[in-house]
Amino acid sequence: MISVGIVGGTGYTGVELLRLLLRHSQVQVSILTSRTEAGKRVADMFPSLRGHTDLKFSDLDLDQLKQCDVVFFATPHGVAMQHAEDLVAAGTKVIDLAADFRLQDLAQFEKWYGMQHHCPTVLKESVYGLTELNREKIKQANVIGNPGCYPTTVQLGLAPLLKNRLINTQSIIVDAKSGVSGAGRKASLGMIYSENADNFKAYSVAGHRHHPEIVEALENISGQKGQFDQLIFVPHLVPMIRGMLSTIYVDLTELGQQTDLQALYESFYQNERFVDVMPANSSPETRSVRGANELRIAIHQPQPNKLIVLVAQDNLVKGAAGQAVQNMNLMFGFDEATGLEGIGLLP
Amino acid sequence: MISVGIVGGTGYTGVELLRLLLRHSQVQVSILTSRTEAGKRVADMFPSLRGHTDLKFSDLDLDQLKQCDVVFFATPHGVAMQHAEDLVAAGTKVIDLAADFRLQDLAQFEKWYGMQHHCPTVLKESVYGLTELNREKIKQANVIGNPGCYPTTVQLGLAPLLKNRLINTQSIIVDAKSGVSGAGRKASLGMIYSENADNFKAYSVAGHRHHPEIVEALENISGQKGQFDQLIFVPHLVPMIRGMLSTIYVDLTELGQQTDLQALYESFYQNERFVDVMPANSSPETRSVRGANELRIAIHQPQPNKLIVLVAQDNLVKGAAGQAVQNMNLMFGFDEATGLEGIGLLP
Amino acid sequence: MISVGIVGGTGYTGVELLRLLLRHSQVQVSILTSRTEAGKRVADMFPSLRGHTDLKFSDLDLDQLKQCDVVFFATPHGVAMQHAEDLVAAGTKVIDLAADFRLQDLAQFEKWYGMQHHCPTVLKESVYGLTELNREKIKQANVIGNPGCYPTTVQLGLAPLLKNRLINTQSIIVDAKSGVSGAGRKASLGMIYSENADNFKAYSVAGHRHHPEIVEALENISGQKGQFDQLIFVPHLVPMIRGMLSTIYVDLTELGQQTDLQALYESFYQNERFVDVMPANSSPETRSVRGANELRIAIHQPQPNKLIVLVAQDNLVKGAAGQAVQNMNLMFGFDEATGLEGIGLLP
Amino acid sequence: MISVGIVGGTGYTGVELLRLLLRHSQVQVSILTSRTEAGKRVADMFPSLRGHTDLKFSDLDLDQLKQCDVVFFATPHGVAMQHAEDLVAAGTKVIDLAADFRLQDLAQFEKWYGMQHHCPTVLKESVYGLTELNREKIKQANVIGNPGCYPTTVQLGLAPLLKNRLINTQSIIVDAKSGVSGAGRKASLGMIYSENADNFKAYSVAGHRHHPEIVEALENISGQKGQFDQLIFVPHLVPMIRGMLSTIYVDLTELGQQTDLQALYESFYQNERFVDVMPANSSPETRSVRGANELRIAIHQPQPNKLIVLVAQDNLVKGAAGQAVQNMNLMFGFDEATGLEGIGLLP
Repeated sequence: MISVGIVGGTGYTGVELLRLLLRHSQVQVSILTSRTEAGKRVADMFPSLRGHTDLKFSDLDLDQLKQCDVVFFATPHGVAMQHAEDLVAAGTKVIDLAADFRLQDLAQFEKWYGMQHHCPTVLKESVYGLTELNREKIKQANVIGNPGCYPTTVQLGLAPLLKNRLINTQSIIVDAKSGVSGAGRKASLGMIYSENADNFKAYSVAGHRHHPEIVEALENISGQKGQFDQLIFVPHLVPMIRGMLSTIYVDLTELGQQTDLQALYESFYQNERFVDVMPANSSPETRSVRGANELRIAIHQPQPNKLIVLVAQDNLVKGAAGQAVQNMNLMFGFDEATGLEGIGLLP
Repeated sequence: MISVGIVGGTGYTGVELLRLLLRHSQVQVSILTSRTEAGKRVADMFPSLRGHTDLKFSDLDLDQLKQCDVVFFATPHGVAMQHAEDLVAAGTKVIDLAADFRLQDLAQFEKWYGMQHHCPTVLKESVYGLTELNREKIKQANVIGNPGCYPTTVQLGLAPLLKNRLINTQSIIVDAKSGVSGAGRKASLGMIYSENADNFKAYSVAGHRHHPEIVEALENISGQKGQFDQLIFVPHLVPMIRGMLSTIYVDLTELGQQTDLQALYESFYQNERFVDVMPANSSPETRSVRGANELRIAIHQPQPNKLIVLVAQDNLVKGAAGQAVQNMNLMFGFDEATGLEGIGLLP
Repeated sequence: MISVGIVGGTGYTGVELLRLLLRHSQVQVSILTSRTEAGKRVADMFPSLRGHTDLKFSDLDLDQLKQCDVVFFATPHGVAMQHAEDLVAAGTKVIDLAADFRLQDLAQFEKWYGMQHHCPTVLKESVYGLTELNREKIKQANVIGNPGCYPTTVQLGLAPLLKNRLINTQSIIVDAKSGVSGAGRKASLGMIYSENADNFKAYSVAGHRHHPEIVEALENISGQKGQFDQLIFVPHLVPMIRGMLSTIYVDLTELGQQTDLQALYESFYQNERFVDVMPANSSPETRSVRGANELRIAIHQPQPNKLIVLVAQDNLVKGAAGQAVQNMNLMFGFDEATGLEGIGLLP
Repeated sequence: MISVGIVGGTGYTGVELLRLLLRHSQVQVSILTSRTEAGKRVADMFPSLRGHTDLKFSDLDLDQLKQCDVVFFATPHGVAMQHAEDLVAAGTKVIDLAADFRLQDLAQFEKWYGMQHHCPTVLKESVYGLTELNREKIKQANVIGNPGCYPTTVQLGLAPLLKNRLINTQSIIVDAKSGVSGAGRKASLGMIYSENADNFKAYSVAGHRHHPEIVEALENISGQKGQFDQLIFVPHLVPMIRGMLSTIYVDLTELGQQTDLQALYESFYQNERFVDVMPANSSPETRSVRGANELRIAIHQPQPNKLIVLVAQDNLVKGAAGQAVQNMNLMFGFDEATGLEGIGLLP
């Protein structure tokens, strides 16, 4: 039994962490902080938690957080990096669900997030928490940069190809679609119901913060630095709460064309409990992973030299809180699936 | 051809007024004001208007507004009452889509809207714009208080009964349901997509601003002051953009039980182009009036002394902007249906 | 560890049962039958189950079912009653999620379901599975008629009042709203997406099958036979997948008016893990119970003699599959909450 | 004033045609046929039409149809081709909203639609009704094959590039997204509400009937036969009723890279009332065209040699019934915008 703190529990990733951790057999959620709601019972804000916890929001108190074995940051970008060094020094592990520890390239971080990085030393030692790809490092890590939702789909969708150098790295197109919860729980005109329901659009076509994260991650997976400059990434907004589907278009190399790709994917992920390679010509639906820490992949080869990779996940689970818990499980030696066995809600 | 001004064009009733008035054969929209968006093209804010108008938002300039034949206020409560007197003095008619001229009872206005009334004299001369019930007065009016959306359904749903004293006035229950656009276009947490989609709830059970408006209106229709104190009105929020359905439960008097109520309703509304009495045992759907200035009624008599009245409308059209245009048509001697002939979008 | 069979696993209650039972620590789902899909893997039909089970649909084989400790019928009305007698004789318990064992009144059953009852003797011995109200009988039962979704909300919403004779039984109005999944998984025009999205309507106003079930149940709860003839029940269809809210209007007796009703409700349900009495003037949202076996109640007293009871649940969980599992837990001596501890998805 | 017949008025394109034609100043809808609903008032099936028409469905009677000036076929594929020859011989023009007159390649038609073509001679003389690109031919046509919804977006999205040979024709990727109404009004499991709401998926990845139509059309626009074999087209299903967005990825030729593409698009469509080229870096939303016969385009150039073309329309209007009316207007010498001036519903 470990003691867990959550900093920033009023957003969707915060309440999703609570949904998972309050049912996790090996943890006790001890602290839940909020700048604005200190003193309020979390169940009064999120009525789904009524009867499941008496936790109250508290102000962020670093000394208290240091008593925890691990602290999750479900905060805006820039918060975790202010406290990570102190926490690690006190022996407390850190899992940041924001972007502070995702990008190793400081210039990219400053460009896309509009702030200087506060603790580049900790950043260097931090581990990027794409569980399936960095498992061994995660087990040893003190600080985890939990991946963005879009980057998770792209990395797991392309890893089998990149590890085996089967595609042209400079012609990747990611046409991605997300439910609205991905934008967080914020009062803004663009997010209100009547602006999003019964509507579909692309957004951030000129540049999305997950773009540099995807590029850096694909470089690391493939070991091919500087070979993903031409990546095209267009996110779209779907009138649904949860769910994300990335449709990825790649050009196969000669070797790629000679490879049995379905077999490759199945083999690559055969021991992964949370990555499901569907039969050839399937179409993963986001509702098949609603609420579950699962990611489904299907591939289509419309022409000998073209591959379409479809990747579905719940943006709040495998794309955020679920993967964070999966990482925590590794860091503390629990079974990787502890607390993550739930089956998705379909319908 | 008359000249029209719209004060407050950045909300949903504002853009809905524009949708209707830009296609109205007898009007020219000359002025569109916004406190926050002056100088901006309205089509840049509402892309559905691209190609349909070059109008720009301007600051509110009373002298300019006085050049208009009529000014619509699609503003928060409390704005129209600051300008109505000056406009009327200049010969400009006023149609307020907010609540400033809905309640004759000043105490009720102050209680529910939290402000003193600024021009009680104008209020006294203003006309409540429930078109079908106040047609003759509306034709002569200088200032119209355009009804709230919920009150429109209740009044038209109960008028045939009240005019003929067929129900117990003290046991009326209105269980009303509205799409989310009824709450307006505001950045607030409670209105964001992920808080409303795939969800249903009651709200303002302890008291909604439309309650006193309904009571006063029913008193006026029936001529029975003080006989509606026991009215119960519970609004609910439906995960849809537009649409409103009120399910109204009433107890029939002896006379009511002896009356052919279906025939009464059909006769009462036989000359009304925008009120549709459906066959007995029908169930009006909100989508049947999506975008149309129509209101459909169906009645059910589950027991000899009980009547259920179902009333459907588009809250933004017959419940707001459409009825405002209908009133304008009357005030200027146009055919009442001018600009309102559009058929609803189904699906 | 008990062995479980599910007859009719291709509907929404079937897949919901699987979602719950595949994670239940005390059961093994051994058999899953389908008339139309025998031989197919259930995970091929419901991709949310991929990786969670290898079960295949089989033809209904009574001898195999008799090997089970309990058989759930998630079938159309009329199937369970054909097999219940044989199963019970073989020592297999039966939980029917359809209507075969809900109504003790055979005439009502035949009137509303259009078929003769096949085993009135078993019916007489069967127990109505409203867990919180019939717990002791359920523990001893061999056959359970699992309640309808609407009746569950009405019974739990009114039980504290009825048990204490605090309301007029002849003026109850139930204005109920359900998500679309309540209509099941059937190919019919009326259920397709574009007919239901962004739409709201009442349905079955002239009479719904749950009406006689509600009446009979309220009679049993109150011990007042024949005192609920005037019940009004109007169901509505909400454009959401899961979720149900009943808004119940009642007239308080003198005694009711003198009672602290909030305290009564809290006391009545204080030991119930799945019934949550919210603070006075709350508004339960359906999303607060999405996917959870919970039911939330809030009461409002707008006038001394009037009470409004708001009741929310997930129609597929506490309104169907969840309550069925809750009953199974009682029947086999498991902790009542086994397999039902999941927290709802919010958002 | 011309006389119009509609064959097959019970689907979504049928009711959408009625919505437009009943308000069209130059036409009288005389006949509306249905195999299954003969004798029924169309307003009883589609309550949005109550008060707008007394039309009843009738059986298909060829002699009656021959009295019409034009007959629209809003039928399944294969119906129009059985009657087109007779109608044309009688001087009646034909506009088919199904696929019978879309593909000139008979082999492709038979492959994708599973039937032999019944009147290849008429097909040869028919005109493909993409209004903006074939205007002069449409004016002279007797038979129009009205384009599919997806093909309309791709053609108008790429025409400026193809006419000027600015892109590589063999690397076009169309990632398209449609609302559910595009699948028609049919009772099928895959289309029911709970299977589509809060869900997103690709479909027909292995091949969609609009694929050959797109290829043939792009060949015709560009004059480059056989140069579009490598086209990739992946349709997706969005949980919304109406609306379609195509995200098109193309590689620019040298010439393309040297061209001011924004200026090109604006110039290409400058006289088109129904095609709106948005400012650079815009993002067209489907709700901006809800119910309107409009199509909005925006282009993005993420790299010198890459262009992203975003195209939004209402699949039932510019993608079906609206374009059909636009074609009719041309064929009869009416102003092209007659009956199509309506502004979209936003919200």
